[in-house]
Amino acid sequence: MAGRKYVIEAIGTFFLVFTVGATAYIGTPLAPLAVGSILMVMVYAGGHISGGHYNPAVTLAALVRRRIDLGDAIGYWVAQLVAGVVAALVVRVVIPAHATPRPLSGRALGAVFVVELLFTFALCFVVLNVATSRDNPNNSFYGLAVGFTLMVAAITIGGLSGAAINPAVTLAAVVLGIFAWSTIWVYLLAQVVAGVLAGFAFRALNPDDK
Amino acid sequence: MAGRKYVIEAIGTFFLVFTVGATAYIGTPLAPLAVGSILMVMVYAGGHISGGHYNPAVTLAALVRRRIDLGDAIGYWVAQLVAGVVAALVVRVVIPAHATPRPLSGRALGAVFVVELLFTFALCFVVLNVATSRDNPNNSFYGLAVGFTLMVAAITIGGLSGAAINPAVTLAAVVLGIFAWSTIWVYLLAQVVAGVLAGFAFRALNPDDK
Amino acid sequence: MAGRKYVIEAIGTFFLVFTVGATAYIGTPLAPLAVGSILMVMVYAGGHISGGHYNPAVTLAALVRRRIDLGDAIGYWVAQLVAGVVAALVVRVVIPAHATPRPLSGRALGAVFVVELLFTFALCFVVLNVATSRDNPNNSFYGLAVGFTLMVAAITIGGLSGAAINPAVTLAAVVLGIFAWSTIWVYLLAQVVAGVLAGFAFRALNPDDK
Amino acid sequence: MAGRKYVIEAIGTFFLVFTVGATAYIGTPLAPLAVGSILMVMVYAGGHISGGHYNPAVTLAALVRRRIDLGDAIGYWVAQLVAGVVAALVVRVVIPAHATPRPLSGRALGAVFVVELLFTFALCFVVLNVATSRDNPNNSFYGLAVGFTLMVAAITIGGLSGAAINPAVTLAAVVLGIFAWSTIWVYLLAQVVAGVLAGFAFRALNPDDK
Repeated sequence: MAGRKYVIEAIGTFFLVFTVGATAYIGTPLAPLAVGSILMVMVYAGGHISGGHYNPAVTLAALVRRRIDLGDAIGYWVAQLVAGVVAALVVRVVIPAHATPRPLSGRALGAVFVVELLFTFALCFVVLNVATSRDNPNNSFYGLAVGFTLMVAAITIGGLSGAAINPAVTLAAVVLGIFAWSTIWVYLLAQVVAGVLAGFAFRALNPDDK
Repeated sequence: MAGRKYVIEAIGTFFLVFTVGATAYIGTPLAPLAVGSILMVMVYAGGHISGGHYNPAVTLAALVRRRIDLGDAIGYWVAQLVAGVVAALVVRVVIPAHATPRPLSGRALGAVFVVELLFTFALCFVVLNVATSRDNPNNSFYGLAVGFTLMVAAITIGGLSGAAINPAVTLAAVVLGIFAWSTIWVYLLAQVVAGVLAGFAFRALNPDDK
Repeated sequence: MAGRKYVIEAIGTFFLVFTVGATAYIGTPLAPLAVGSILMVMVYAGGHISGGHYNPAVTLAALVRRRIDLGDAIGYWVAQLVAGVVAALVVRVVIPAHATPRPLSGRALGAVFVVELLFTFALCFVVLNVATSRDNPNNSFYGLAVGFTLMVAAITIGGLSGAAINPAVTLAAVVLGIFAWSTIWVYLLAQVVAGVLAGFAFRALNPDDK
Repeated sequence: MAGRKYVIEAIGTFFLVFTVGATAYIGTPLAPLAVGSILMVMVYAGGHISGGHYNPAVTLAALVRRRIDLGDAIGYWVAQLVAGVVAALVVRVVIPAHATPRPLSGRALGAVFVVELLFTFALCFVVLNVATSRDNPNNSFYGLAVGFTLMVAAITIGGLSGAAINPAVTLAAVVLGIFAWSTIWVYLLAQVVAGVLAGFAFRALNPDDK
């Protein structure tokens, strides 16, 4: 089936964003476990077809690392962003809650930029090493490593930036009323820079692994 | 031993339902971890004999995906449903608690249908990909992926529908007084539809993997 | 080194019991995660030398399943019980706390027997299938499955019986003042019966796997 | 790239210490999960390049076990300690919080020594067995075992000693104001002794595995 990669990316991103949005609306204390684990299980379920990105920053890092070509990357980005918005709309229909985006002043915005950059880098760095390195063939830990990196972010920087570390989640969070339109450029800039940096860092640290 | 597959399905479903019922009666905050993990460990323990379904919706998805024939599926369903009811009765004997099913009105019932459909689909979709795909031979992550999908559901939609996503758990929850007889058709319908959809989705997305 | 198996059993059981005792004295809400995880990591660390039992009931199940001979089993039992008592004494020195054993009346003692029997059986059943079955060679999930079975027990039946499911833990819990001398026969009886049952269940369900 | 091992050690230790420091400043109840998981994911991400120590005590144990030579060990130590201090400084910039080191009297200092010794030993013992034993080739569990050992320590002895079990974390905790300069010799002494002991214990228990 042509395009099945994009369908998998859409399915995985849908469930990732649904879980992020629903747990944010409900406000359950184990939310970081749910968010990290849904990414883990979707990476395991769809990795054999699409690589299991579910995150435009990861796709960007894979593009820089030359594991995906630009045409496919664009398809992934569209699938991820559309699926994220759809998931956000389903959350709004299913869960009767409301969110008001926190206003972020200067210092807090700076902190958002730093922590989103750090953990988006960590996520992309982990993905490239566990899922694309020739040193780790046929391992069974790639989904665990990727998903639990997001879980760490959700616990550690959830209170600072919301721990989006994913442009599809960032866009969906605006639809959900969790982030404000006026501040998402900080998130997206940090995430894009981090994805590019992670791609070049992998290439510099693994010069023989093309 | 003839029928050992059914015995394994009965043992695994018994422990799954016992854990669901006991943690629901006791009301412990780490219940989702217990529920997801008991499914994980039973999948690892019994998977080599029965495939480790412990869920009639998963068996239905495996039937649609043609990994089990109808005769075996019926045996699995009987074993799962009977073991679930037995586990519920043991919980009632061992734990001196009572539950009163919440009344569910129209909008809430609609939400139950949507979230049970979504996460039963996710569970079956994960099972088919990690445990039956020819692309993932001899992996060590299948139990982790399956069990933690249930854990995500328990955290994310536990407060909306109870996160049964399993007809054997649904029936046992009625015996436990957690669900009402009058509403379980919504659960069962969503779970059956989701199992069938997951089976066809796998076939569409993996056309060469018969 | 002769006897290195027993040293590994002593080290692993020491850390298991230390973790159980320290978290019980401190009363931390994540205790089940610590207890299950210390078993997991010690199974992974010592499994290649001793099989990673750290539990006389598991050793008994392995004896019934004929994976260990009686001489070795006795050595394991001594190492496990002594190490457990030593760990309990270290906990008492390091942590300035006190515990008073709950009195258990008739109905509660019956519940203790049932739930200790069920989860000791589950633990031994999981160990035999994931770590000794010829169907699961060279897997990477055996420690995860074994450790998380204990975690499930700690969450699910911790409030009913303390979730010892291990004679070495049971004995140490008396030293720690958590269990009473007058009631531990119920624990030990349930655990011994469960170990024997799990051994015979494995043999009945895997008749060709000697 | 020459020195890429040291870069990996610096990256991994940076994220480990950032997570430890940020969760300590914020005071989130799931902190142990974040701390254990960031170690796990960084071990998986960087293990193929540097072995994934991120801890001078682990490097010391690997030196005693003869898996790393003294020159490399010194490079690892410098990278780990510098990265830890840098991470602590970033935490101080990003998170507007303050910490006051608890005063530790005689008995409490003795308990710190015992528990830091025990769990640094456990961590090094687990690393050597899961990541350097010839009996465990090509396994997928090494990061899970290593990371979750730290998680157990964070839950079990976090309230007693802070569960540093790592000289780089200990030094960073002073920079963060969590530990006092006057007491860190107790931590460092316990950690160094534990690393040496774990190295010799591995050699004694695995005499044929040079």
